[in-house]
Amino acid sequence: MENSANSPKVRGLRLGAAGAGIKRTDRDDILLIELAEGSSCAAVFTRNAFCAAPVTVARAHLGQSPRWLLVNSGNANAGTGARGLEDARRSCRVVAELTAGRPEQVLPFSTGVIGEYLPLEKIEAALPRAVESLDEEAWERAAKAIMTTDTRPKLVSRKIALRGGEVSLVGIAKGAGMIQPNMATLLAYIGTDAAVEQPLLQTLLAEAADRSFNCITVDGDTSTNDSCVLMATGRSGVVIGKDGPNYPLFAQALQAVCDELAEAIVRDGEGATKFMTLVVEQARTEAEAREVAKTIAHSPLVKTAFFASDPNWGRILAAVGRSGCPELDIGKVAIWLGDVCIVENGGRASGYTEEAGQKVMAETDITVRVVLGRGDASQRVLTCDFSYDYVKINAEYRT
Amino acid sequence: MENSANSPKVRGLRLGAAGAGIKRTDRDDILLIELAEGSSCAAVFTRNAFCAAPVTVARAHLGQSPRWLLVNSGNANAGTGARGLEDARRSCRVVAELTAGRPEQVLPFSTGVIGEYLPLEKIEAALPRAVESLDEEAWERAAKAIMTTDTRPKLVSRKIALRGGEVSLVGIAKGAGMIQPNMATLLAYIGTDAAVEQPLLQTLLAEAADRSFNCITVDGDTSTNDSCVLMATGRSGVVIGKDGPNYPLFAQALQAVCDELAEAIVRDGEGATKFMTLVVEQARTEAEAREVAKTIAHSPLVKTAFFASDPNWGRILAAVGRSGCPELDIGKVAIWLGDVCIVENGGRASGYTEEAGQKVMAETDITVRVVLGRGDASQRVLTCDFSYDYVKINAEYRT
Repeated sequence: MENSANSPKVRGLRLGAAGAGIKRTDRDDILLIELAEGSSCAAVFTRNAFCAAPVTVARAHLGQSPRWLLVNSGNANAGTGARGLEDARRSCRVVAELTAGRPEQVLPFSTGVIGEYLPLEKIEAALPRAVESLDEEAWERAAKAIMTTDTRPKLVSRKIALRGGEVSLVGIAKGAGMIQPNMATLLAYIGTDAAVEQPLLQTLLAEAADRSFNCITVDGDTSTNDSCVLMATGRSGVVIGKDGPNYPLFAQALQAVCDELAEAIVRDGEGATKFMTLVVEQARTEAEAREVAKTIAHSPLVKTAFFASDPNWGRILAAVGRSGCPELDIGKVAIWLGDVCIVENGGRASGYTEEAGQKVMAETDITVRVVLGRGDASQRVLTCDFSYDYVKINAEYRT
Repeated sequence: MENSANSPKVRGLRLGAAGAGIKRTDRDDILLIELAEGSSCAAVFTRNAFCAAPVTVARAHLGQSPRWLLVNSGNANAGTGARGLEDARRSCRVVAELTAGRPEQVLPFSTGVIGEYLPLEKIEAALPRAVESLDEEAWERAAKAIMTTDTRPKLVSRKIALRGGEVSLVGIAKGAGMIQPNMATLLAYIGTDAAVEQPLLQTLLAEAADRSFNCITVDGDTSTNDSCVLMATGRSGVVIGKDGPNYPLFAQALQAVCDELAEAIVRDGEGATKFMTLVVEQARTEAEAREVAKTIAHSPLVKTAFFASDPNWGRILAAVGRSGCPELDIGKVAIWLGDVCIVENGGRASGYTEEAGQKVMAETDITVRVVLGRGDASQRVLTCDFSYDYVKINAEYRT
């Protein structure tokens, strides 16, 4: 497996971008993805009950052999009721008219401010330019077009040698805030030129997303627009079958792409200055391990202590204590900050020194490991700290 | 019911304070409360599995007819293992020696930094001064002695005319951060000169605390030290019996005292600039209503939008959507910001204008009302916004 960052490409998948001036006038804010005929397409969506209009439409169109994906940033088309749904459907019709396709073959996606109507006329005016710019090598430009408060584009590319030939996997994502995906992250699009039947593609994506995007959190807020799409054009001629020899290698590469995108989202979390890996071990169940990890990850007190590089491990301990493990025996709990044991036997570890804790906290990448001593299950959750800038970015977002 | 803020007093209950120099040297940081013989005492404690050493000891001593409460601020004696427990017990022995009582009649309480051992010698040295200063009229000084990051003392006082005479109810509390009480708030002490048998006193306290302290949240972090104590000296000679005529009036006054203290804690939340009342109506159950209210209250995105006075109602909608109501019909949900309807029929309310929302957000006290349209249960949760200062206070707390 080799990282090919230079002009990645997926045969049979073209990307076009344009600036529609939805929120800002100095950048691309719409992205059109075109899939070759015969491609298969899988997707996972937000579990937020108030899902955005485009999510509702994309979900309905997913079974119609999608050929185009239309993404806009700057406006989420969420909380927009019946008009929002009509706007999302109309954007599909516009793409269909320009490409001589059917509206049902278009999947719409939006990200940005919630609760404002989509400026459809702006999108309509810009779409011909996006169509004209369609290009197999435009992944970098595409990654930039879907950004909102992200400070950098997120693009991951892999080539894997399989039986039958080489296969490409390229993915882009946007993240930044309102990140506690509960199904998939805000927006992620992954393409491959492998040939994968739709049901298997869906299984592969669901598993990879659950272990990557669903294990990250910036602020605990699940977006109304989370969507992750996996597209397979088949143009490499290499077939991935459930029981075939290519399956494990392909699944592993897909997982690696998702993991890397998920990590990039956390590292670029709003205002983030630290990258924290929370590992919870010896839990009764994976769900329990994830709950403990997320309770730590969501604690504003833990997050602000990390921002301050303060080894205030009492806040981690308090978060574990309130995470709701039934009959937790605190005497069996151990907590590690990097390679320093900070808690054992229900209290501060005997060998712990503030200096040792301080040394770990001075790093940018910090691993917190919680050993519960009550089972065999473990989980890993990625998160970031909570800084002045998080407050600043979110207090000023709409102004 | 009359508010008597000037030198409140509970006959049979004396308070003494002193500066032990636990964290700072320019203030009182220990408080001793002395109860007249024959008083009864009820308490509720944190549900955090990592409860602090003094909580464990106070819980064990509660059934031994407590006569003294020892409170220190500046150090939580939490996460301190076996030595912490021994320190808490020894502090009880010191009080017993000075007052010719039994150690089991002393309830210890601590609040402050987690994970550092109690500076017992400092407390021992200061205790004689606290004993000397014991005074029925020292409630104001007591309220100040238990503060940590609170910016102002919290003291509430009521006199109620009951059959048999007048009864006093006086309460103090401390709050500020790590506030999502799950049983009681950080520290609250309420005294009355009514005569109430212990089991009834416990019932009264549990009910009042559940409807007040358990309905507030600053940051979702449940402390390891939450404790709330209700003390009845009986010195007024007025008896409160379960089926007697005084019961409803007394219970109502106690609820009012708890409500007022809880509200004062939220208004003085770390870095708070706004006071938010979240009302969730027409839920299936009270638990569901409280969960929705707390999801909104804990959302960093909602809290930062309120800090910015930004009517970014989409964030409220997104929080409702992720709060986990099974089969929520978003078409039935309505959301009100003050007297302005912002969401109806699954989207932005038809009559909503940004100006109307902005006008409500400009206020300091803001009520958000969510109508779920699926039942008869309702709940009210109080919280505050999330400001630069919350991050600052918690990033710098130990330095």
